[in-house]
Amino acid sequence: MTASPLDDFATVLQRCGIDLTALQGSDIAVRSPIDGTELARLAALPAAHMPAVIGRSDQAFRQWRLTPAPVRGELVRLWGEELRRAKADIGHVVSREVGKIVQEGLGEVQEAVDICEFALGLSRQLHGKTIVSERPGHRIMEQYHPLGPVAVITAFNFPSAVFAWNAAIALVCGNPVIFKPSEKAPLSGLATFKALERAIAQFTAPFGDRAPAGLAQIVLGGGDVAEALVDSPQIALVSATGSSRMGRAVGPRVAARFGKRILELGGNNAMIVTPAADLDMAVRAIVFSAVGTAGQRCTTLRRLIVHRDVKPALLDKLLKAYASLRIGDPLQPGTLVGPLIDEAAFNAMQHALAQARQQGGTVLAGGRRVLAEPFPQGFYVEPAIVDMPAQTAIVRQETFAPLLYVLSYEELEQAIAWNNDVPQGLSSCIFSNDLREVETFLSAAGSDCGMANVNIGPSGAEIGGAFGGEKETGGDRESGSDAWKQYMRRTTNTINYSRELPLAQGIRFG
Amino acid sequence: MTASPLDDFATVLQRCGIDLTALQGSDIAVRSPIDGTELARLAALPAAHMPAVIGRSDQAFRQWRLTPAPVRGELVRLWGEELRRAKADIGHVVSREVGKIVQEGLGEVQEAVDICEFALGLSRQLHGKTIVSERPGHRIMEQYHPLGPVAVITAFNFPSAVFAWNAAIALVCGNPVIFKPSEKAPLSGLATFKALERAIAQFTAPFGDRAPAGLAQIVLGGGDVAEALVDSPQIALVSATGSSRMGRAVGPRVAARFGKRILELGGNNAMIVTPAADLDMAVRAIVFSAVGTAGQRCTTLRRLIVHRDVKPALLDKLLKAYASLRIGDPLQPGTLVGPLIDEAAFNAMQHALAQARQQGGTVLAGGRRVLAEPFPQGFYVEPAIVDMPAQTAIVRQETFAPLLYVLSYEELEQAIAWNNDVPQGLSSCIFSNDLREVETFLSAAGSDCGMANVNIGPSGAEIGGAFGGEKETGGDRESGSDAWKQYMRRTTNTINYSRELPLAQGIRFG
Amino acid sequence: MTASPLDDFATVLQRCGIDLTALQGSDIAVRSPIDGTELARLAALPAAHMPAVIGRSDQAFRQWRLTPAPVRGELVRLWGEELRRAKADIGHVVSREVGKIVQEGLGEVQEAVDICEFALGLSRQLHGKTIVSERPGHRIMEQYHPLGPVAVITAFNFPSAVFAWNAAIALVCGNPVIFKPSEKAPLSGLATFKALERAIAQFTAPFGDRAPAGLAQIVLGGGDVAEALVDSPQIALVSATGSSRMGRAVGPRVAARFGKRILELGGNNAMIVTPAADLDMAVRAIVFSAVGTAGQRCTTLRRLIVHRDVKPALLDKLLKAYASLRIGDPLQPGTLVGPLIDEAAFNAMQHALAQARQQGGTVLAGGRRVLAEPFPQGFYVEPAIVDMPAQTAIVRQETFAPLLYVLSYEELEQAIAWNNDVPQGLSSCIFSNDLREVETFLSAAGSDCGMANVNIGPSGAEIGGAFGGEKETGGDRESGSDAWKQYMRRTTNTINYSRELPLAQGIRFG
Amino acid sequence: MTASPLDDFATVLQRCGIDLTALQGSDIAVRSPIDGTELARLAALPAAHMPAVIGRSDQAFRQWRLTPAPVRGELVRLWGEELRRAKADIGHVVSREVGKIVQEGLGEVQEAVDICEFALGLSRQLHGKTIVSERPGHRIMEQYHPLGPVAVITAFNFPSAVFAWNAAIALVCGNPVIFKPSEKAPLSGLATFKALERAIAQFTAPFGDRAPAGLAQIVLGGGDVAEALVDSPQIALVSATGSSRMGRAVGPRVAARFGKRILELGGNNAMIVTPAADLDMAVRAIVFSAVGTAGQRCTTLRRLIVHRDVKPALLDKLLKAYASLRIGDPLQPGTLVGPLIDEAAFNAMQHALAQARQQGGTVLAGGRRVLAEPFPQGFYVEPAIVDMPAQTAIVRQETFAPLLYVLSYEELEQAIAWNNDVPQGLSSCIFSNDLREVETFLSAAGSDCGMANVNIGPSGAEIGGAFGGEKETGGDRESGSDAWKQYMRRTTNTINYSRELPLAQGIRFG
Repeated sequence: MTASPLDDFATVLQRCGIDLTALQGSDIAVRSPIDGTELARLAALPAAHMPAVIGRSDQAFRQWRLTPAPVRGELVRLWGEELRRAKADIGHVVSREVGKIVQEGLGEVQEAVDICEFALGLSRQLHGKTIVSERPGHRIMEQYHPLGPVAVITAFNFPSAVFAWNAAIALVCGNPVIFKPSEKAPLSGLATFKALERAIAQFTAPFGDRAPAGLAQIVLGGGDVAEALVDSPQIALVSATGSSRMGRAVGPRVAARFGKRILELGGNNAMIVTPAADLDMAVRAIVFSAVGTAGQRCTTLRRLIVHRDVKPALLDKLLKAYASLRIGDPLQPGTLVGPLIDEAAFNAMQHALAQARQQGGTVLAGGRRVLAEPFPQGFYVEPAIVDMPAQTAIVRQETFAPLLYVLSYEELEQAIAWNNDVPQGLSSCIFSNDLREVETFLSAAGSDCGMANVNIGPSGAEIGGAFGGEKETGGDRESGSDAWKQYMRRTTNTINYSRELPLAQGIRFG
Repeated sequence: MTASPLDDFATVLQRCGIDLTALQGSDIAVRSPIDGTELARLAALPAAHMPAVIGRSDQAFRQWRLTPAPVRGELVRLWGEELRRAKADIGHVVSREVGKIVQEGLGEVQEAVDICEFALGLSRQLHGKTIVSERPGHRIMEQYHPLGPVAVITAFNFPSAVFAWNAAIALVCGNPVIFKPSEKAPLSGLATFKALERAIAQFTAPFGDRAPAGLAQIVLGGGDVAEALVDSPQIALVSATGSSRMGRAVGPRVAARFGKRILELGGNNAMIVTPAADLDMAVRAIVFSAVGTAGQRCTTLRRLIVHRDVKPALLDKLLKAYASLRIGDPLQPGTLVGPLIDEAAFNAMQHALAQARQQGGTVLAGGRRVLAEPFPQGFYVEPAIVDMPAQTAIVRQETFAPLLYVLSYEELEQAIAWNNDVPQGLSSCIFSNDLREVETFLSAAGSDCGMANVNIGPSGAEIGGAFGGEKETGGDRESGSDAWKQYMRRTTNTINYSRELPLAQGIRFG
Repeated sequence: MTASPLDDFATVLQRCGIDLTALQGSDIAVRSPIDGTELARLAALPAAHMPAVIGRSDQAFRQWRLTPAPVRGELVRLWGEELRRAKADIGHVVSREVGKIVQEGLGEVQEAVDICEFALGLSRQLHGKTIVSERPGHRIMEQYHPLGPVAVITAFNFPSAVFAWNAAIALVCGNPVIFKPSEKAPLSGLATFKALERAIAQFTAPFGDRAPAGLAQIVLGGGDVAEALVDSPQIALVSATGSSRMGRAVGPRVAARFGKRILELGGNNAMIVTPAADLDMAVRAIVFSAVGTAGQRCTTLRRLIVHRDVKPALLDKLLKAYASLRIGDPLQPGTLVGPLIDEAAFNAMQHALAQARQQGGTVLAGGRRVLAEPFPQGFYVEPAIVDMPAQTAIVRQETFAPLLYVLSYEELEQAIAWNNDVPQGLSSCIFSNDLREVETFLSAAGSDCGMANVNIGPSGAEIGGAFGGEKETGGDRESGSDAWKQYMRRTTNTINYSRELPLAQGIRFG
Repeated sequence: MTASPLDDFATVLQRCGIDLTALQGSDIAVRSPIDGTELARLAALPAAHMPAVIGRSDQAFRQWRLTPAPVRGELVRLWGEELRRAKADIGHVVSREVGKIVQEGLGEVQEAVDICEFALGLSRQLHGKTIVSERPGHRIMEQYHPLGPVAVITAFNFPSAVFAWNAAIALVCGNPVIFKPSEKAPLSGLATFKALERAIAQFTAPFGDRAPAGLAQIVLGGGDVAEALVDSPQIALVSATGSSRMGRAVGPRVAARFGKRILELGGNNAMIVTPAADLDMAVRAIVFSAVGTAGQRCTTLRRLIVHRDVKPALLDKLLKAYASLRIGDPLQPGTLVGPLIDEAAFNAMQHALAQARQQGGTVLAGGRRVLAEPFPQGFYVEPAIVDMPAQTAIVRQETFAPLLYVLSYEELEQAIAWNNDVPQGLSSCIFSNDLREVETFLSAAGSDCGMANVNIGPSGAEIGGAFGGEKETGGDRESGSDAWKQYMRRTTNTINYSRELPLAQGIRFG
C-alpha cells in the first residue's frame, strides 16, 4: 500500500474556494480518517449569532419568493455547472475527509449535479391542480408557494450530496437555505457550498435582479447551532439527516412549534435471497452494499436473509469475495474499503460483534482491525459476516460499520416478516428471478420500507425517486418524485366570479 | 319562538341505529345546547381496554390491506348510500346535540355523502408513478400501500363530517379506523358510525370476502382514551381535530414515536374587503361565515379587514343585517343563529369582549346573552362586532364564538400583513372585483393560509380541495386533492431485470 | 340442451323501458343469434333528420357546460344506480341480442356501473395544472373545459358497456352525447340508454336546474346516420368502435374537418407462453380469452406463441379443455360458448380456416358448425385451434371468431417480434413466472400493444386503466387513467397581474 | 437607415458549423428578406432518397429507445449548452434569413435553450401511473415508451425554436428525429441542427454507448420530401407547423395510415379590451403582438375587439404608437418592424386590405410599402390598422402580415362570441382589471382557444405551458405541460402474481 498524495490537499481546498485561514479557530478539529491527520481546525459559530443568521435568511426569503421559479432554476443550473467543473476536487475532499473511495467521492458529487438538473426541470413544474367547483361561476385551484428558510443539517457520510439534494430543491421552491454540515465533515460541506456561492455570484435574473444576500448560508458548529435551527419559529423546514436517536429528539421539538421537518434517520436494511436468485449477481450486490463506504451508508446492507437451500452456495461465494476485498487508502485506485470515520465507530462495531457472539452468532469473516501502513492511525477494518441463529436484539439495531448479519429462512412469508421486524424502515431488496416472489415482496403485504428493490442492493438510489423510509427512519422523503412539495406551502383557492353566493353542500342560509 | 319537537328524539336515535340502553353509563353526560336537557348519559370505555381495541384494528388491517382498493371502494359506496338514506335523521341529531341550524346539520351529512363518493372514485385512482431509470434494464415505480390503523379524534363542531372525511378515505386506502368522537357530541358520531356499520354488514367482496371484524370501531371516552390512541405504536396515523393547544400536545407525542398525524387545529380567519368589492355580497358572506354555527366553525370569520373608504358603508349594511338575525331554536326554520355549545363558550366570549374593550375596542353590536324562551338554559348570544384600533393580543387569539373584530386599512399590503400576522393559518378571503388585488392576495406574497378565497367567505369549503392550514393550524391537509396520500405509505421500487449490476451516478465499484 | 325462456323477452324489454311499438319500422331487423328469431323490426332515422338531432345536442351543450362538473357527476351517479337496478334485465337483452353467455352479459352491465362510479369520482377531479411563470407578477394555469357534442358509434360486441364508457365520461366532462348503436344490437343499446333517460328524469341540480333537453340522444340507423355524425362540424368528438377498415375511413374524414376522434378498432392479440409459465393457469386464460364471447371480443386471443419446449404439454391440456367446452344456448347456465353473431361471421371463419390450411396450417381442433338443437338457425361453432408453421398472411388478419393460431418459438426475442409483427396493436400478454422475461415483454423493447398483460389473458380489462391500442387499432384510449382528457378542451392561461409587460425568453421590445 | 454588416455572414455560418459548399445546389434559393440578396443556393434531397433516410432513423430507434431516458437527457443538456454558446450567431442567422429583429432572433434561440432544460428535467419524469387493481394479487401500471421516428416539418417564421421544441422532447422520449425546415429558412434550421450534431458528437452514455447513427437527420427539400415523411408508415409521429390548408391535407393522410401527428396551424388571434383595462398596457401589448415579427407569428394579434366606450381613447394611443414605429433593417438596434418574408406576403396583405375596404372597413393607419433604403428589394410595410363595421369574411381569415382589424362591442358576451367565431382557435387575450370579466373570458363559456391570456398579448408563450390551439389550428399541443406524452406510446399493464385467475367485473367463467 503506497501513500496517496496528501501534500496537495491545500491546493485542492483552494481550488474549491475554501480559505482555511479565514475559517480558522479552535472549536472543530477536522481529521482525515485515512491517516488521522488533522486537516483543519475551524471556528464554530457561537449559537448567539444564530438569530442574526436566521434573520438574514428570513430577509432573503421576502425577495427570493418573488423571483419567478424558472429564474430560480437558472441559479441551480449555474450551481450544477460549478459542481460539474469542480467534481474531481470536491470528490477528493470527500474522500479525504470521510474516507470514501475515489469512485464514491465522485459519485456523490455526480448526485449533486443530477439533483441540480432535476431541480432545474422542476423550476417550471411546481404544479398545483386546477379543480372544478360544485358551484356555478366558481373555480378552485391549489397553488404551491415558497415556504420560508430551510435548515439543512447533514451527517458525515454524505457530506456533499445530501446538502445538494435539499438545497437545490429548496432554492428552486423559493426558499433560502442555512446549511449546518456535520462537525466531522465540514470541508466537504464547504466545498459544495462554495460552488453554490460562485453560482450566486454569477446569477442575474432577466429582469436585472441579483440573488438576495443571505440566500444561502453555512454555519459551522455543534449541537447548540443545530438546536437554534431546530427551535427557531422562523425556520420553516428543518431537514435533518442522522440517527433515529437524533430524530426522536428533533421531531417533537419541531412539532411543538408547528414547524415542518424532513427526517432521514437510521436504516437496518435487509436483502432476501431466494432460491430463484442469480447468486453471482447477488454476491456482487451484497459486497457493494455491505462494504461500500465501509458500511457507513444509511442504506448499507446490514441483514442478509437467505433461503436455507442456497445459503451454503451463497456464503461460499460471498466469503471468497470478502477475502479478496482491497482494504486501505481510499484514494488508491483499486481500493474498495476505506477506513471507518473514527475510533468510536470502530469500538461500536467491536461491541456489536461481541453482542452478536453472545446472542448466538458465529463470525464467519472479518471484524478485525487492519493496520494499513503507512496509516497506523486510521481505523481500517475487515468487513464482517456474522451467521445468526435468529433476529436477536443486536441484529435489530443499526451499527454503522461493515457488519453483515446472515439469517436463514424457509418460507418467503417468514423472510418478509423478518425484513419488517426491525424498528427502522429505510431500504430493502430481494434477489429473485421469480415473479411471484418479487411482486409479493413489493406488495401491500411485502416490505414495509420506503424503498424496496429487486435484484439490486438496498443502496445507491437514483435521484428520480423519492428517497426516505418509514418507522424510525422518519417517515419523510427527499430528492425526486413529488418530494419538492414538502419545501412549499399549499394554498387552496376558491374563486367566485359570479354575482351569487351559493354555499357548498347545497346549504341554504338566510 | 315556539318549541321544536324534542319528544321524538328517541325515535330518531333508534332510526339511526343507536341503542341508548346498551351504551348507558355514568361517565358522559350529553346535553343539548338548545335547552340544556340531558340527551343521554353514556359509559366511557376504560382506557385499559384500548390495547384490545387497537389490537383488533391491527388484526383487521392484516386482511383489509389485501382487499383490492376498488372493492374497498364498494364499502364506502354503501356507506354513502346509508348516509344519504339517513340524512334527515343524522342531521337532526347534529342539530340537537351541538345546536346547528337544520340546514347546517343537513349540510354536514351531505358533506359526508360527498366524501364517500369522492373516496369511491379514489378507489381506482390511488396512483403512484412509474419512473424511468438511468440504468439500462431497470425501471422504477412508486406504489402507495395501506398504512395501518387510523385513529380519528374529532371535535364537537363537526361531529359527523370530519369523521366521514377521514374514515371514507382511510378505508379506501386500506386502513381500519378507530373513531373517538368529542365527549360533547358522541350521539352525532354514533349516528354516522352506525351508518358505516350497516354498510359493513351489507358488504361482500366479489371474491366472497366480508369486511374483517374490527375494521371500524368507535370508542367513547375522555382524554385517557385519546391518549391511548396518540401514544400507541400500532396506530399508524392520528387524525385529530381540535384546538392548537391540543395539537401542541399531540404533535410531539406522535412525533416521538415516529407516528404520522393529521392535525386540524385553530383558525383565526380574516376577510379583506377592498374598495373594489361588491359590498352587498360581502355582507352576506360575512354574516354566514361569522355567525353560522354560532361562530363555532374552525373556519368562522373572526377578523374583518376593511378599507377605510368603504368601512362606513360596509358597517352600515352589516349592522343592519346583524340586527335582523333570527337567534334561537336551531330546529326552527328561519333561525340563523343557534346556541353556543355550553356555558364555558359563553364565558370565553364574554372574557374576549372584555379584553377587546380593554385593548381599545368598541363593541358595535351584540355580545349579550339572549334569553330564548322556552329554553332558558341554552346559551344563546347576539353575534358581536367589535371595532378595533389595531390587531391587538385578543384579536390574534381564536375565541370560539360569534365575535367579529373589525380593522381598517389603507394599503392592501398592510391588510395582507395583518391577515398573516396571527399564529393560526387556516382560512382567509378577499372581497374585491379588482384582478390585481385578488391575484396579489393569492400570490406567494399574499395570504399565508391553507385556504385563500375570493368573493366567498373563509368557511364552507368543498370536499374536492385539500382542507387544512399552516402554522398553528397544524400544517396538514385532509379531504380532497391528494390528501389521501397521507393515509398510505409510499414505497419506491427499483427493479433490475437485466443481467448487469450498474450503479447509479455512474459509479464503478470493484 | 333445453330451450331458454324466450317467451318473456317482451316483459324484459318493457322493464328496460323499451317500447317496441313506438320504435317499430321496416329498416332494421334485429335477430337473435341464439335461434335466428326476429326480436324486433325498427325504424331507422332518416339521415336528413340528423342536423336537427345534432342541433339539439349543440343547444344542450350551451347549458350543460355551465353545470358544475360535480353536479354533472350526480347524473352519472343516478345512471349507475339505474344500471345496477336493471343489471339482470339489460344483461339478458345483451345475451339475447348478441348471444353472450349470462355471466358475460352481466359483466358488461357491471362494467357500465363501474364506469359510472369512476366518472362520479372524476367529477371533482378534472384537474388541470397550475404552472409557475418565468415572469414576475404572472401565473399560468391550464384548465380543461367541456368540448361539445360527442357521438358514440358502437359495435355489436359490446353493445352496452362501450356506450357507457364513453357517455359516463363525456357527460361528466360537460358534453351531450348522441349514441348510434350497431344495427345488429340496437336493443342492448336502447336498454342502456333508457337507464340514462331515467337518470336524467330524476336529476335536479342543487341550484334547481334540470338536465337540458337533448343532453342524451339515441339514433337508430345505418351508415348514413353514422356518416352524418362523422362529418358534422358540430360534433366535437367522434368515438367509434369497429373494424380497422371502418377506422381507416372515419379517421381521415374527421381529420379533414379538424374534429377529434377516439377510434377503437381491430385487435390481433397474442399470448406468449414461456417455459417458465404455469401451464394450467395459461390454459384457463387461453380458453376464456379465445372462446369467450365466441371469439368476438376486440381483445379476443387470436395468436398463441408458445415455446417449443412446452408446446406439446400446453397443447395437450388445451385440446382437452376445448373438447369439454359447452357450446350452445348462452342463456343456459354452464354454457361457455354461444353463437356467432350471424352467418357472415361463420363464413368468414370458414374462409380463414381454408386460408390457414392453404398457408400450411393444421387444424388441431374445432372449426365446424354445431347444430345446437333446438336452435337450428343459430351459427354455433366449435372453437378452432390451428397449428401454423409461420406467421402467414391469414394469421396477421383479424377474423372475428373463435379461431386460435399456434406458433412455436425458441427465443423470447423472436416471440416478441411475432407479437409485434401484425398491423393491429391492441392487446397482448405473456405467461411466465420469470421476472426477466416478463419485464422484457413490458419494456420499451417488448410488446408494442396498448395493453400488455402478465399471467392473464389479453381480454377483460379493468376500467381503471386506459383502454385502447396502437397502430391499426387506432392509437386512442378510453375508459380510465387520463382518457377523460380527450373529452375536454385544454386552455392554457397566462395571467399578468403586475403593472409591467415583460416578455418571455427575456426579449426586450421597444 | 444604415446598412447592417452583411459581409460577415459567411463567418457567422461557419461558426454555426454550416459548410455551404457541401450543401450547394440549384434547388433552393435562400434570400434574405432584408435586402433580397441570395444568401445561399442549396441542393434539395431527391425524394427517392427518403426511404433510406427514414430507414436510418428506424435503425437508430432500435438502439436509442433502450438508452435510459436520463441518459438521453444528457444529450439535450449538451445541446442546450451548444445553443447557449451559439446564441448570438444563430439569432443572427434567423434575423438575416427571415428578417426578425435582433431581440426576436435571440429570443427564439433562448426558447430553444429553455426547452432543452425543460426536456432535461423531463428525462427523469416521463411518468406513467401505478394503478390499483380490483383483483387480489394483481396490480396495474401504465408505462410510456419511445414511439419511433419523429418528423419535424417547420415553417419559416420560427425556423429555430419550433424544431428545438419538438426535437428536444422527442429525443428525451427516445425517438430519432428527421427535420425538414422550411425552404424559406433552411439556414436557421441548419444552424440549430448543427448545434445538435455537436452535442451528439460529445455525447457518451455512462455505460459507454454513443448516440446511434441517424439519431438526428436534416433533409432540405420541397413538398415531395415532406410528403415522403407524411406518408411513411415508419414515421411514428409527424409534427408539422404551417397553414390550416396544409394541415387539412396532412391530417387525413397521416390518419389514413394510423400515424400520429401534431399540427400547429393557423391562428386568428383576438384581444378584447374592456372598460376596465389599463389602456397604456394594452397599447404596448397590442403593438408587440400585432407588429412583432412583422405580423408573421402564428400568435400575432389580428383582431382587436374593444369596448365602444374606450375605443376612441385606445385608438388614439394606438395610432400614436404606430406612427412612431421604427421600420427597417431588423439588424439595427431600435428597429421594431422588419421586412415581410417575401413579395407574396406583401401581395397577400394588399389583397386583404382591399377586401377589408370592400367589406366596409376603414384603414386607420398603415398598409403601404416602405422603401427602406438601402434595401429597395425588401418588402417593408407599415403595419396597418383597419376599423371594421363587423366581423366580415376577410376578418375571419388569417393574413400573415401586420394587419390589425378593430371591432367594437357593447356586451362582453358579444365580444367573446366574436373572439370564438372564427375557424381558427390558437390564442386570445383580454385586457381588463375586472375579475368577473377576466374569469368569464377564461371559463367554459369564454374563449375557445388553446391559449387565453389576461393582460398580456396572445403571443410570446412560455415553454412551460402546452402550446397549440383548437379547431383549424389543429387541436394538438407541443412544448410544456404533458405535451411530451404525444411523443411516446402508452402501455397499460395488468400483472397477475397470484395463483388465481379472477376476471374483472366479477365475471365467472367455466
